[in-house]
Amino acid sequence: MVNDTFLKACRREPAGHTPVWLMRQAGRYMKEYMAIRSKHSFLEMCRTPELACEVTLQPVEKLGVDAAIIFADILLPLEGMGIKLEFAKNEGPVIHNPVRTPADIDAIRIIEPGEDVPYLLEAIRMVRRELEGKLPLIGFSGAPFTLASYIIEGGGSRNYVHAKGLMYREPAQWHRLMEKITEIIVRYLNAQIEAGAQAVQIFDSWAGCLGPEDYREFVLPYTRKVIESVRGDVPVINFSTNTGTYLDLVREAGGDVVGVDWRVRLDRAWEVVGDDMAIQGNLDPVTLFGPASEIEKRAGRILEMAANRPGHIFNLGHGVIVGTPVDNVKRLVDFVHEQSSRGG
Amino acid sequence: MVNDTFLKACRREPAGHTPVWLMRQAGRYMKEYMAIRSKHSFLEMCRTPELACEVTLQPVEKLGVDAAIIFADILLPLEGMGIKLEFAKNEGPVIHNPVRTPADIDAIRIIEPGEDVPYLLEAIRMVRRELEGKLPLIGFSGAPFTLASYIIEGGGSRNYVHAKGLMYREPAQWHRLMEKITEIIVRYLNAQIEAGAQAVQIFDSWAGCLGPEDYREFVLPYTRKVIESVRGDVPVINFSTNTGTYLDLVREAGGDVVGVDWRVRLDRAWEVVGDDMAIQGNLDPVTLFGPASEIEKRAGRILEMAANRPGHIFNLGHGVIVGTPVDNVKRLVDFVHEQSSRGG
Repeated sequence: MVNDTFLKACRREPAGHTPVWLMRQAGRYMKEYMAIRSKHSFLEMCRTPELACEVTLQPVEKLGVDAAIIFADILLPLEGMGIKLEFAKNEGPVIHNPVRTPADIDAIRIIEPGEDVPYLLEAIRMVRRELEGKLPLIGFSGAPFTLASYIIEGGGSRNYVHAKGLMYREPAQWHRLMEKITEIIVRYLNAQIEAGAQAVQIFDSWAGCLGPEDYREFVLPYTRKVIESVRGDVPVINFSTNTGTYLDLVREAGGDVVGVDWRVRLDRAWEVVGDDMAIQGNLDPVTLFGPASEIEKRAGRILEMAANRPGHIFNLGHGVIVGTPVDNVKRLVDFVHEQSSRGG
Repeated sequence: MVNDTFLKACRREPAGHTPVWLMRQAGRYMKEYMAIRSKHSFLEMCRTPELACEVTLQPVEKLGVDAAIIFADILLPLEGMGIKLEFAKNEGPVIHNPVRTPADIDAIRIIEPGEDVPYLLEAIRMVRRELEGKLPLIGFSGAPFTLASYIIEGGGSRNYVHAKGLMYREPAQWHRLMEKITEIIVRYLNAQIEAGAQAVQIFDSWAGCLGPEDYREFVLPYTRKVIESVRGDVPVINFSTNTGTYLDLVREAGGDVVGVDWRVRLDRAWEVVGDDMAIQGNLDPVTLFGPASEIEKRAGRILEMAANRPGHIFNLGHGVIVGTPVDNVKRLVDFVHEQSSRGG
């Protein structure tokens, strides 16, 4: 591989520079993306391998990041699970038959990725061919909690009353649901790996609505099971947000890399996560709306906190925000490369 | 005062039981509240002392909490500041002239509480008369950051792009805005105290969108200034959410009591906050949708973590959620009283 800095960092091996990629690096902040999006719905883009491939490669060409991540959505497995998903205009995903009862849990189908998400696997194969070994490709999935709360709440949520309600009122049903979802995610990730994904990231974007004890009891065992079931020696990034007060538990859930958001100092996070795991993060995405001097100052601080230690993957603490100036993103990538290869 | 457990706990003095009150204890989950709300708009209720007084007292009578908190909204000072606020139906507050430019900051008027929020001060006097010294009354305000980000964003926000943008692009303007807001909050709180509030809480509900370094540089000095400027020996509760990864800085901002959310274990929070401050919290509000056994188990765990140490005020980690069964809230209050007076 021409640029294997990302995979080296996942394994905490020294690399020529600190690798950098950005969550949602393929997205609406980029005019090349919008040119395609203006002609196709979001789901059409996900389900058409040529389009997904093209969009996946846009930030690689434009920004010079050190890894590609397949263009997809964490909700893609839902259709195969028997859950009716719609991307309502400007409203985000809406689920018309949310999972609330034991019968709803019974009805969830364990997906067969080859039949249920063939377009995703084809897109992965296509991106791998296009990349010609120049850069690694990351596959991904929602984590069990985030996926479970999505299908229970039936969409976005403020307080997660239904998801937590199931935990608190019917813990046995909660566990049964999480077991099924875990099996689905394991199949989903391993199919991506078989198709060519060289690392995978698990997004637990919503875990931070939980307190530490609920995370430990109702979530951690399933995230761990997913991570342990990932095939071969493909690195796993365990990413979550708003979990900085119990990174010790996130660490316990496992992974080669722990992804952290900007609410925690990178050096403190690393103290908790320990020397045997890599760390990914953690610039506040809003920084990219600031002036260049501020972006460099803040990115520089993060690099200093990582102290050039092998095993740091530079990223934002969450996805690139719509409206982010592309030039600023490019500048960030260049800055991380220059600054870290200077041996600084 | 007949029941001074709350004020004692604020001062870390032993009390007969652990005092408990709940953020948003007067609210839409209660049918007595809805009976009034069905006839008046939210702002009308805030601006009519008789109604605000009645609603303030509802949870005192119904739940047996150990403190009343004046029925009001953190956005009440905005009108006097010259900011046009509207409570749009089902959409929460909308500001039609958000603060974005230096001229907008110039235009902000420093309020005169006696002229700008006379109804609030009158409501406080009225509640004090009605309470006849049986229970203490808490006044409150938004913290400088939460108020600033509200008026910059012009309402609720997902990423706080405008607020952080001002910080990052024009720090001098940010500081100028925060100085004005700080002055306004100090006047607002001291007027409440003069009218009869016996403790005050500062709500920094949105501070948790910031990383620790931004909190330290752009927020902490102003929160501290507010707390230091509160008149007399009235206890101040410094409440914020999602700041559990930098409670050391929240502590530095000061207050007699630090309010914490459920993302942090109470015992760990207290380790960081230290022995010279009281702690308020921290049950996940969604717990109140669970069965009684679960509510008691979880509340019991928090009491155990507080270990009957003087200076614990029991509360939720955030406000009571609409739809919460009132009986469960009542049961929680009773449980905290019984359990803690048992010397357990």
